[in-house]
Amino acid sequence: MDKKAAVRERFMKVYDVVRDDLLADFGQHNMPEEAIKYYRESMDYNVPKGKLNRGLSVIDSVAILKGRELTEEEFFKAAVLGWSVEWLQAYFLVSDDIMDNSITRRGQPCWYKLPNVGLMAVNDALILEGAIFQMIRKHFRKEPYYVDLIDLMHEVGYQTEMGQLVDLITAPEDNVDLSKFSPERHELIVTYKTAIYSFYLPVALALILCGFPVEKKDESDTDYYKIAYDILIPLGIYFQIQDDYLDYSGTPEQIGKIGTDIKDNKCSWCINTALKYANDQQRATLEANYGIKDDVAEARVKEVFRAVGVDKYYAEYEAASYEEINALIDKTPEAVSPCGGAVLRRSVFRVFLEKIYKRTK
Amino acid sequence: MDKKAAVRERFMKVYDVVRDDLLADFGQHNMPEEAIKYYRESMDYNVPKGKLNRGLSVIDSVAILKGRELTEEEFFKAAVLGWSVEWLQAYFLVSDDIMDNSITRRGQPCWYKLPNVGLMAVNDALILEGAIFQMIRKHFRKEPYYVDLIDLMHEVGYQTEMGQLVDLITAPEDNVDLSKFSPERHELIVTYKTAIYSFYLPVALALILCGFPVEKKDESDTDYYKIAYDILIPLGIYFQIQDDYLDYSGTPEQIGKIGTDIKDNKCSWCINTALKYANDQQRATLEANYGIKDDVAEARVKEVFRAVGVDKYYAEYEAASYEEINALIDKTPEAVSPCGGAVLRRSVFRVFLEKIYKRTK
Repeated sequence: MDKKAAVRERFMKVYDVVRDDLLADFGQHNMPEEAIKYYRESMDYNVPKGKLNRGLSVIDSVAILKGRELTEEEFFKAAVLGWSVEWLQAYFLVSDDIMDNSITRRGQPCWYKLPNVGLMAVNDALILEGAIFQMIRKHFRKEPYYVDLIDLMHEVGYQTEMGQLVDLITAPEDNVDLSKFSPERHELIVTYKTAIYSFYLPVALALILCGFPVEKKDESDTDYYKIAYDILIPLGIYFQIQDDYLDYSGTPEQIGKIGTDIKDNKCSWCINTALKYANDQQRATLEANYGIKDDVAEARVKEVFRAVGVDKYYAEYEAASYEEINALIDKTPEAVSPCGGAVLRRSVFRVFLEKIYKRTK
Repeated sequence: MDKKAAVRERFMKVYDVVRDDLLADFGQHNMPEEAIKYYRESMDYNVPKGKLNRGLSVIDSVAILKGRELTEEEFFKAAVLGWSVEWLQAYFLVSDDIMDNSITRRGQPCWYKLPNVGLMAVNDALILEGAIFQMIRKHFRKEPYYVDLIDLMHEVGYQTEMGQLVDLITAPEDNVDLSKFSPERHELIVTYKTAIYSFYLPVALALILCGFPVEKKDESDTDYYKIAYDILIPLGIYFQIQDDYLDYSGTPEQIGKIGTDIKDNKCSWCINTALKYANDQQRATLEANYGIKDDVAEARVKEVFRAVGVDKYYAEYEAASYEEINALIDKTPEAVSPCGGAVLRRSVFRVFLEKIYKRTK
């Protein structure tokens, strides 16, 4: 087993601990067996099913910041925070799927689509969210940075919900209005709905765990979190634009799903790019065919995407963005934490970038 | 204007401040005007529309604990915490209405029923919840009890979601199974789904605000929160049983709504009492007619309720419960807070009891 698989396996063991703690707590509240069984299914079905990149990146980041192998306890704590990110993702996905009327997620039916679940999924999403603060409280209540962890989770959760709101208002499934789209709107949605929780949050949690102070005592103090944010948000935007492009260009064999952004009226990078370069006739074609659940309409949209050169603009964007983020990373100061001796190393960010650069799935 | 109306008016002024803060924060995140407008509507429609009893009781409790008129600042802080309870209630109601497929709430269409809302209401509920921690952070971040406020809100929210889960599992709208009902199950649901957030939470917030320590340093220390819990939960159960009884017995003119517990297969006090005293034939009638959306079936259930003597048992319950809670209050020690000089006076609880005793709406 390679090192990556070994870390993943250890990470999964911590899942069992966290889940069993949560179930035991239900038991202490005298919840009936049936409720405990249901809760267990809800977690097992929704939490540990993805690629776990977000959760694992908390552990990876802590190891890089400390510059050494983690002790058992350090690994465990980083893993609990990693799971808190995966729980956060789970409650977003469960609720987003209800709102988007989605059918499948991660190769299985969406949770709310199961016959014994239905709209109970709304409450399940709330419970998945509540569980985040249960696990953080259990393992970090005595730590001086407990409040910082809680505040961060709240900020990020709230900002992600803001992003979801803007996305839903900008691109409602049943009311296509391309005049609401713009590159600026796209960037706002991507930043708030995806980049903050997927890229900034794992590293920010790692920084807190390694003792990097959240509050600056003095104006001249290093703002570690701003350094991280200023690189990780562009990285997250880059990641989402890849996602948008793969949704349009990737084959199902390649990306493991059928792209539906065009039919679903998504405010994606592709449509925004196409609108930017389309002539009047092409724009009319987009307006007449975007967001319609019909293969012919979708094909017409793709035709315009090709004609205006979305593929070429993407290749240019990807190359430029990679350069830019690399330059950003290069000029990052490698700041030492005032307590604990951890260092905010450039490789924290480099690892992320190399993971996603030129990905095709 | 009487004193009660004056307090309510001052309380409403704090609503405007809290809401405007939240909107300003959206603006600082560069959210578009359209999103800010939508958020404002979501709050105005869902938060300040009820009787506001829960929110106001934070203010009332703080005044009783301190034993004097509140200063401007004390009133404001108590009011912010009062609103945090109303926001909590709002996110539960918005999400419960989606899950129960309800039509109206507080005399207006349910939020998710509005044509421009729909299932976006799922995200709106999440945002309403997130706002609680925004307002607490803004006004209490520097207080030594900040963490206690946050932990309490999490605990209570999570427990209420547990209650909702058990309720949904016990009494799904579309699958009637009266063997799942029992007085114990009813009490569990009522405690977790209603009593904790409606009765315990406002007083616990008031205790924290008045400096009553949450953690006992020594085993022999007074546990103020347990004292409050042990009275307020029976009070909350009493309140909900009144609600259950009024749903069955009250006229629409009297209770301001049409009771639907029987048609909706609710695990209410009435059906549990009827099941307890029903003979085989009456039980069969209940099983054949409960939870069916049909006036004739509902009338048959009510007929059994009358025949087994639900009304008489309710009168007995109400009298006994009033006695019991009064006795509980009488034996409560009037404990002085170690800091700030506030006193956990019996009248905190007495005020609640007198407000709800023999209510008919």
